Amino acid sequence: MRILLVGAGGVGDAIAKIAARRAFYEHLVVSDYDIARAERTIAWIAAKHGPDIAARFTAASIDASDPDGVERVAREHGATHVMNAVEPKFVPTIFAGALAAGADYLDMAMSLSEPHPTDPYSKTGVKLGDDQFAQRSDWETAGRLALVGMGVEPGLSDVFARYAADHLFSELDELGTRDGANLIVRDADGHEVFAPSFSIWTTIEECLNPPVVFEKDAGWYTTPPFSEPEVFTFPEGIGAVECVNVEHEEVLLMPRWIDAKRVTFKYGLGVEFINILRTLHQLGLDSTVPIRVRSEDGPVHVAPRDVVAAALPDPATIGPRMTGKTCAGVWATGTGVDGSPREVYLYHVSDNEWTMREYDSQCVVWQTALNPVIALELLATGVWSGVGVLGPEAFDAKPYLDLMARPEAEGGYGQPWGMEDRLAG
Amino acid sequence: MRILLVGAGGVGDAIAKIAARRAFYEHLVVSDYDIARAERTIAWIAAKHGPDIAARFTAASIDASDPDGVERVAREHGATHVMNAVEPKFVPTIFAGALAAGADYLDMAMSLSEPHPTDPYSKTGVKLGDDQFAQRSDWETAGRLALVGMGVEPGLSDVFARYAADHLFSELDELGTRDGANLIVRDADGHEVFAPSFSIWTTIEECLNPPVVFEKDAGWYTTPPFSEPEVFTFPEGIGAVECVNVEHEEVLLMPRWIDAKRVTFKYGLGVEFINILRTLHQLGLDSTVPIRVRSEDGPVHVAPRDVVAAALPDPATIGPRMTGKTCAGVWATGTGVDGSPREVYLYHVSDNEWTMREYDSQCVVWQTALNPVIALELLATGVWSGVGVLGPEAFDAKPYLDLMARPEAEGGYGQPWGMEDRLAG
Repeated sequence: MRILLVGAGGVGDAIAKIAARRAFYEHLVVSDYDIARAERTIAWIAAKHGPDIAARFTAASIDASDPDGVERVAREHGATHVMNAVEPKFVPTIFAGALAAGADYLDMAMSLSEPHPTDPYSKTGVKLGDDQFAQRSDWETAGRLALVGMGVEPGLSDVFARYAADHLFSELDELGTRDGANLIVRDADGHEVFAPSFSIWTTIEECLNPPVVFEKDAGWYTTPPFSEPEVFTFPEGIGAVECVNVEHEEVLLMPRWIDAKRVTFKYGLGVEFINILRTLHQLGLDSTVPIRVRSEDGPVHVAPRDVVAAALPDPATIGPRMTGKTCAGVWATGTGVDGSPREVYLYHVSDNEWTMREYDSQCVVWQTALNPVIALELLATGVWSGVGVLGPEAFDAKPYLDLMARPEAEGGYGQPWGMEDRLAG
Repeated sequence: MRILLVGAGGVGDAIAKIAARRAFYEHLVVSDYDIARAERTIAWIAAKHGPDIAARFTAASIDASDPDGVERVAREHGATHVMNAVEPKFVPTIFAGALAAGADYLDMAMSLSEPHPTDPYSKTGVKLGDDQFAQRSDWETAGRLALVGMGVEPGLSDVFARYAADHLFSELDELGTRDGANLIVRDADGHEVFAPSFSIWTTIEECLNPPVVFEKDAGWYTTPPFSEPEVFTFPEGIGAVECVNVEHEEVLLMPRWIDAKRVTFKYGLGVEFINILRTLHQLGLDSTVPIRVRSEDGPVHVAPRDVVAAALPDPATIGPRMTGKTCAGVWATGTGVDGSPREVYLYHVSDNEWTMREYDSQCVVWQTALNPVIALELLATGVWSGVGVLGPEAFDAKPYLDLMARPEAEGGYGQPWGMEDRLAG
């Protein structure tokens, strides 16, 4: 396996660092629009693991918006797998470039949605991933695999859903992805500050798009933003967090391979963050359309959302000032394999102090990066295989979760996952 | 009396339009940095009242930031009174220009404050109006009057306070200015939108500066923003509104002339607006320091607060889409003249539909503009007189309130004020 990693931002950087501890691939090309970022990642690996490990990595320059450029870099380096680790707006071009290069493809977010033109808050328009699934036959014909949505959410959440369906339930009422954290960022004086751990630009996009819900009888439908608020209790001390419906890939992926009456995604934004996003929307500050603003150099045109992003701390820089944990998981309800009612939460927790110490990577970013590396290893070793455009739930979940949980000393990733039986007792 | 009005923005425009119905002055020069704005105001007066009335008005160009320029325009037109109707940041230059020209001076907001350098949320630094009061002896020596804070709040509120002290109370516990409204702005489709009726730039400045409170024993002190929330019930159908402490001139003016144990200003921002201002502050979007932001033309530098102002509807344009009323007043508590406990709210209400119909001016702006015209009339007729730097409470309140309330047909302004006895029954 020769991997072309596209993007050396937060997640791409962490993918390379996690892969540096593994032996399953022959070579990994770290590419970025700004080659200096790719070189920085490899320099970190060299400092941490020495020149022999770093020799398995090459830095390259790439333009993710150009399918021909992606194809050329992939061919130059003989890539067998293209790992997309950039913003979802580049999915179409990298997806096309990988197929043209005869490589397999993985991403962590799917092609973007477009709201229904007249009824956005009850009907779907173009759904997340629709563009990719529409090209399924091209990938099947070519005998190539596109494994889409293979981060933590989507990704690990979809693996959990498949595990629940295969091993825990005879009938599933709801597969509800639930994501929550207790992360706190402090300024130099120790005061708590507002600093989202993920790109505010993308968070606004996710949270203000109409959330999508799947029901077996109704199919996919949408709701207004922040619908169906629910207080969900997360494990390992994170506790109760207000969660709301958010547009996310799991809802589009799981029903394609798993039989469940209802599929949802709720994000534990918390009341404060929900109010902030509502306010930004109310004031038009979420807009990506440039407006005219006075400046010392005369009138300029800026998109309000870009100003919001520029005013906040860069999520890539807050790791050292952040404490707490983030939790990703699936809350599954229905009838257990023994015929009695069952309710479980399958989850994985990432602790920022640990990820910073081990990887110089903040925990939300690191948790996202962990999962595609595990998937690549299962593909490299032939445990997972397939052709066409497939989600993580199209594959057997057990070897994935076993490899993830097994201690590093025994060849695993040393990342245990948890299961809470919520109807127990 | 020959008046030089500096500023033909919303309030300046309304001052000229209100003055057009009165006969107490000889001539009024409407001046602005942009003379076209001054000409537009006079054109409206000509269309509404005919050429004879409009002949009493002249448009002029002025640079409010230059004291020499203000003096020159004042001298050119033989101004006896300079009426400042621009942003408070121009107070020092217009104040100096008026004195240099040998004219009396009026404004509706006082020279700006500066927070205490080390303890901003408990101690005052430079207070509102300090710069102006420091020049008191210059005005006294010159035999000239500077009547400061003569809008609606400060202004009419200070007149109410003086009225309460002279006619209603033997001892005052608190003079609490309370300002609230039930204004609603709708978009073209009839949906309610967030559109502050006053400059968001100034509102942020007022509300995020440390609020100042006066207590007879403690003197002036400050608190954190939005302190001492209180639900105050406003009259004429406006109802209950959440009010919080805000830095405002009344607290600095009233104690100089009126004996009260405590003086406060609370603004009926409402829970929603308070949350919006808190969020803007939390995200650094209230900042006036330019930040670097990407744009289609490359990186630019803009102040986040300017972007917020640019993203919202211009308050000068929302009048036609706004409904509701605004209320300004003083809540006075203490011992009545008969020796028994007393609690009254003295107020004036302005209805947007009426001000739009009569003046093409939205009600918050119009209510501000009404009061300096009444004060100018009392000065022109000799009912009010004085030298030095004086607030509205330095003058007799009764003739002011009588002139304001008397019907237009009987020579008054036809603007009745109200008094609620809140301990009655």
